[in-house]
Amino acid sequence: MTLQQLLGIRLPVIQAPMAGVQGSALAVAVSNAGGLGSLPCAMLGPDAIRKEIAAIRAQTGNPFNVNFFCHVPPEASASREAAWRAALAPYFTELGLDPDGVAAGPGRLPFDSAAADVLDELRPPVVSFHFGLPSPELLERVRGWGSKVLSSATTVDEARWLESRGVDAVIAQGVEAGGHRGMFLSEDLNTQVGTLALVRQVVRAVKTPVIAAGGIADAEGVAAALALGAVGVQVGTAYLLCPEATTSALHRQALQTEAARVTALTNVFTGRPARGIVNRAIRELGPISAAAPAFPLAVARMAALRAKAESLGSSDFSPLWAGQDTNGCSEVPAAEMTQALARGAKQ
Amino acid sequence: MTLQQLLGIRLPVIQAPMAGVQGSALAVAVSNAGGLGSLPCAMLGPDAIRKEIAAIRAQTGNPFNVNFFCHVPPEASASREAAWRAALAPYFTELGLDPDGVAAGPGRLPFDSAAADVLDELRPPVVSFHFGLPSPELLERVRGWGSKVLSSATTVDEARWLESRGVDAVIAQGVEAGGHRGMFLSEDLNTQVGTLALVRQVVRAVKTPVIAAGGIADAEGVAAALALGAVGVQVGTAYLLCPEATTSALHRQALQTEAARVTALTNVFTGRPARGIVNRAIRELGPISAAAPAFPLAVARMAALRAKAESLGSSDFSPLWAGQDTNGCSEVPAAEMTQALARGAKQ
Repeated sequence: MTLQQLLGIRLPVIQAPMAGVQGSALAVAVSNAGGLGSLPCAMLGPDAIRKEIAAIRAQTGNPFNVNFFCHVPPEASASREAAWRAALAPYFTELGLDPDGVAAGPGRLPFDSAAADVLDELRPPVVSFHFGLPSPELLERVRGWGSKVLSSATTVDEARWLESRGVDAVIAQGVEAGGHRGMFLSEDLNTQVGTLALVRQVVRAVKTPVIAAGGIADAEGVAAALALGAVGVQVGTAYLLCPEATTSALHRQALQTEAARVTALTNVFTGRPARGIVNRAIRELGPISAAAPAFPLAVARMAALRAKAESLGSSDFSPLWAGQDTNGCSEVPAAEMTQALARGAKQ
Repeated sequence: MTLQQLLGIRLPVIQAPMAGVQGSALAVAVSNAGGLGSLPCAMLGPDAIRKEIAAIRAQTGNPFNVNFFCHVPPEASASREAAWRAALAPYFTELGLDPDGVAAGPGRLPFDSAAADVLDELRPPVVSFHFGLPSPELLERVRGWGSKVLSSATTVDEARWLESRGVDAVIAQGVEAGGHRGMFLSEDLNTQVGTLALVRQVVRAVKTPVIAAGGIADAEGVAAALALGAVGVQVGTAYLLCPEATTSALHRQALQTEAARVTALTNVFTGRPARGIVNRAIRELGPISAAAPAFPLAVARMAALRAKAESLGSSDFSPLWAGQDTNGCSEVPAAEMTQALARGAKQ
């Protein structure tokens, strides 16, 4: 079965859900262009999810995807919190911020029964997950609505695990990918391999359709992914400069510099490894910091630094998520980007 | 111009030179099959180079490649040597070895005038370099024989640098690749990107033909590389189980286990980052150790541990070089492997 048949779309291009840099507008544009637009829900409460899905449905009749995280919320650790506070203290001083005045910050909630209750009303055509899958009971509810289920695998083991739980397609997320690694069976970064190597191995290991992600930035990248046996691609970074994305001005600026060529997997922004352009926070605190609290607890304190620094025009403490090929970024409408990528599938 | 036209070969497949695990036999088999066989010369003295090239010429009339390293031999640092000695001391005790009894160990010589004098007699059709290029004078001598010149780029900057010096083709070595990273303009591992992302960026950045390397393990990988705009591929890992390779029994065994899926970039074996299967030495000393002396000075002390451990049937201290996809490894003649890979080019 083709990805188009599986998801009811015209082009085998999924716009990667990117929490923090997009909402319904990008999803609408991609779905209307024939690809699969995605709405990242990890930072949205029930009302916001309802509102955003309504916005999508009002603007397109085509299928779309809603994306959720599936992490297990960690217990806060006083010692790690203290270590993190100490690590960031010099920056609080430098920026004139009160280290006791940190708000809880934007949360990242896992998919739970409250979210399922919202989706129950809305029945989205496609639901994708990151960091594994929700509980069997919750997953059963999602499948009960007829929603197609996708999730990310960063290793062959994860792909097999997802297949055994009946996902409709596996997103093979190679190490080139921007944003959070979807890894959930191991915390060992050495298990994370390049897209070319990963996609081939996953295609050989599972019968479930495989969607390639990571470093795919243009039609040629799409053609390569299909040559590896993928049924389609998921692309994020290339959409970051599109007018429909809500990428900040500082982030847009960083993406267009030579510095964007050097990214790193870092845990300093959220507590989980994610790929972003190397900036001061990554250089001085990481890229991997043992002091960073478990995901998503590292966010709050960094978010305070980020907000203040950004108000001064600096991206020193901003997560400048990006994959390893920003050459595909272009300030064109997302529909045009989708069509340009899909040209790689017409050979 | 196709790679076949450039190098006078029939199939766009270069067998990657792999010092320590192959000699002329593998090169002969690949060249006779229509690919480009390669002879790694970094660990060979002038007489051995002469002998091996004679062996190749006696067994094939087809083009072949000789490969050299281009590192600048480092000054020994007493403090780093002492740190390295201290780091390895427990293993010397465990294996009952005398830490004062370490021989200079197998050297890794850069391409120099002595090597050029040998090649002057032998005029190999292709010469490839790793870690940059030799001095302009030496490079001029190589070009003067009519030899085609290849070298590895791990970044766009390195590809541009090589193009500006007139190489005939650039080998874009993605981070999936086994063995030594060819990096020479930066020591920052964050600059190292996946094959899919690197090949596209290099193809866009230079006019020189690009050869893709890293994680390419089968015909589909070759097809993907060509879809990215490469004119051909360089493949190493897939040949490691071929009977013509001199891969040790321990190394062959490791390549066929599930453990081979987890590799790391490590400097503990030689002093330079290279990808190998994670074993005890990498786990306990690295993957990157600040104590390791500069390339190739880390080799001698580790080689003593390796020899003793291997005599006891253990690969704990062996560099088990491998790329991120060992699924392509197969105990078939190298000619068969070459033909299987080349099927990806016939579409």
